[in-house]
Amino acid sequence: MTIVSEFEATPAGGDSAGAGTPPPSGTPAGGEAGTDVTTAVHDVARRAKVAARTLATANRMTKDAALGAVADALVADADRIVAANAEDLERGRANGMTDGLLDRLALTPERIAQIAAALRDVAGLPDPVGEVVRGQTLPNGLRLRQVRVPMGVVGMIYEARPNVTVDAAGLALKSGNAVILRGGSAAASSNSVIVEVMRGALEARGLPADLVQSIDAYGRPGGVALMRARGLVDVLIPRGGADLIQTVVRESLVPVIETGVGNVHVYVDATADVDMAVAIVMNAKTQRVGVCNAAETLLVHEDAAAAFLPVALAALADAGVVLHGDAAALSFAPAGATAVPATDEDWATEYLALELGVRVVPSLDEAIEHIRTWSSGHTEAIVTRDIAAADRFVAEVDSAAVMVNASTRFTDGGELGLGAEIGISTQKLHARGPMGLTELTTTKWVVTGDGHVKP
Amino acid sequence: MTIVSEFEATPAGGDSAGAGTPPPSGTPAGGEAGTDVTTAVHDVARRAKVAARTLATANRMTKDAALGAVADALVADADRIVAANAEDLERGRANGMTDGLLDRLALTPERIAQIAAALRDVAGLPDPVGEVVRGQTLPNGLRLRQVRVPMGVVGMIYEARPNVTVDAAGLALKSGNAVILRGGSAAASSNSVIVEVMRGALEARGLPADLVQSIDAYGRPGGVALMRARGLVDVLIPRGGADLIQTVVRESLVPVIETGVGNVHVYVDATADVDMAVAIVMNAKTQRVGVCNAAETLLVHEDAAAAFLPVALAALADAGVVLHGDAAALSFAPAGATAVPATDEDWATEYLALELGVRVVPSLDEAIEHIRTWSSGHTEAIVTRDIAAADRFVAEVDSAAVMVNASTRFTDGGELGLGAEIGISTQKLHARGPMGLTELTTTKWVVTGDGHVKP
Repeated sequence: MTIVSEFEATPAGGDSAGAGTPPPSGTPAGGEAGTDVTTAVHDVARRAKVAARTLATANRMTKDAALGAVADALVADADRIVAANAEDLERGRANGMTDGLLDRLALTPERIAQIAAALRDVAGLPDPVGEVVRGQTLPNGLRLRQVRVPMGVVGMIYEARPNVTVDAAGLALKSGNAVILRGGSAAASSNSVIVEVMRGALEARGLPADLVQSIDAYGRPGGVALMRARGLVDVLIPRGGADLIQTVVRESLVPVIETGVGNVHVYVDATADVDMAVAIVMNAKTQRVGVCNAAETLLVHEDAAAAFLPVALAALADAGVVLHGDAAALSFAPAGATAVPATDEDWATEYLALELGVRVVPSLDEAIEHIRTWSSGHTEAIVTRDIAAADRFVAEVDSAAVMVNASTRFTDGGELGLGAEIGISTQKLHARGPMGLTELTTTKWVVTGDGHVKP
Repeated sequence: MTIVSEFEATPAGGDSAGAGTPPPSGTPAGGEAGTDVTTAVHDVARRAKVAARTLATANRMTKDAALGAVADALVADADRIVAANAEDLERGRANGMTDGLLDRLALTPERIAQIAAALRDVAGLPDPVGEVVRGQTLPNGLRLRQVRVPMGVVGMIYEARPNVTVDAAGLALKSGNAVILRGGSAAASSNSVIVEVMRGALEARGLPADLVQSIDAYGRPGGVALMRARGLVDVLIPRGGADLIQTVVRESLVPVIETGVGNVHVYVDATADVDMAVAIVMNAKTQRVGVCNAAETLLVHEDAAAAFLPVALAALADAGVVLHGDAAALSFAPAGATAVPATDEDWATEYLALELGVRVVPSLDEAIEHIRTWSSGHTEAIVTRDIAAADRFVAEVDSAAVMVNASTRFTDGGELGLGAEIGISTQKLHARGPMGLTELTTTKWVVTGDGHVKP
């Protein structure tokens, strides 16, 4: 099943099947949420805004203790969560969900313990709120500081995996924000219980339950209403497939951070060490295939092709990778490889599968030009021994992350030392690359005088 | 005349009257630009993107020399610019433009010299590009740096004043970006010549003229096409009245930074020094009235009212300020003041005129609540001697700038030490408050290994 369609703005009715709650009375028309749903979701946002005030001025100890309490509650209520998850799994099987998706959806007591442990890890991270980003005393004696403060209300629209429900709430709370969650209907039962448990734990710590709210019960029209809640929601982060993200970008009046699509390139330069290049390409393509930082196209300088490609393509073929190559690349494909001629569509495709575009280029310039034409701006890598080539690649490739002699798989908040991530931004505004706690904050100028007026 | 209407997406025909160029062949339908205009404007954006690559890797000396050359060219061509400006002024007079607007539109050799001097000031500012924002070596030896890089292509949609054409281009170029300008039709002749002069100066320095392009010739449909150019334009900054800004926010698929609307409050606390409070309120309201950081509402703690309001309201009335007060406030208005009862509409209004809302509040909490309800999140000030009150006001007022015992007029890039500003952001994403050169950049992660792969 695809999750994406439920976020598409179409004149069809609401999607609340299986949400475990009565369907809301409003019905959408032409992609707009009905009045009742809009009112209800905007009330959710207003409650979030009020709740967020409590957390904005809470100190780190309070927030960390709340995260610990939420983690404890999730573990304590693991049986209830697993039972709700069983409903989702049953519905998924009935709908013909693939084994892979069912596995991503499934929760066990062990997985819940891991999710709780991740929350405790977030509690252990430094608090970005209160950091003085810039500060000075002006010649006229005015004292300035630009201080990091929470965003306020963060909206998340995401797909099936129920761990995102907890991860997103944890990062939002730690950075002082309230969160409004709109998960995929495939995980509706799990998410419903998880949100209930988290809200109960917050309330038990004396914090407003409305710091964490779900609008899953309002189905697709609820998602549309959330996208229209400009002024009530400070930022909307979509996480999921390209169609979901593009729908949110297109429909939202709330500022959006575009995440995730990774048409990722590895370029093997003329001077690359062959063994290093093979290891990096294999890691970038095959270490995990369904992720946004996996390689989708391999570009090879023609001077490196004869030494590198026979070894690399044999290793890739052995790993079951289907090769989509240009003629020069395919001439090095081993017998028995599944190899087909590449088209422009291949260069544009994020396979998220054991498939790889392969192209031989006459120069570094052509490699950069190919990347400019086809990349989604997520991550690109160069393998080279040439300082000048590395410097030019770093300077001229306009992507969120540029790797020199390292696998593209390192573009990840955990790997890059951010501690955790709420997504990987492929846009340039506000955040670029992995987004951690800092990226869930904004700043405020505080200006202190003793009666200063402008002359 | 209002400038705003030409940016509104309506089914009416194109606005190219008086632009001094032939009207484009495409016509808009239902707020969308015609196909021809869209193609033309998107080609402009593509050329900007290519041109921006040259500047992205240019060093500071190259950029500063280019700004100097542009400044020289504007001064050298002052006569041509003044002649074009005379056409705009004549058209403005024929259209019944007010004297105030005519003055803002007018260029003289002296004003052109000031504009050129401001460009040279921008050349003198530090270059944000290349700054290493964060960096470390990870336990596995991977070397990370998050480096500041240009956005790429910046779009500006703005109103009448032709100095914005130069200011925006200067800030964009200094921060390594190409700029696409859409000015108001009232200044079309001036802008056309100014852009031509700037492009010539860049070309004479060996830089691409397409670093600075105007789409004024495409009228309103061109502006709409620019808003639709997602992926070609990296950020769109509207500068002007509330209607213009809201239209861009609503219509744009390109990420927007919302600027400028300032429903600004001054709160005089129970313990305020009366003389200081009067001086700050007078400065905030009357030092310059048509600007976004001028005060629009005065809130007064009831314990300060009897000592403060008679003095303050007399001074305000003397300065010609019309008072919109609640009953308690109006009871302190001097005889002869123009004073009328305030409505909710007053609390919501950014007067940009010699008018002021005045309300007496029973507590700091009520003052904060009033600000939460009515503020546009630009700037608020507290006047107080009480540390606890100042701290609460700073922590709980959710605005881009919060002043303690200082005039709201200091929310300005020049005043706050940013050197120059391209606008004042009232949103939380990417930039908040005055936006200088840094806010016209993004970052890129550069990760260097020696064959690192993810285990």
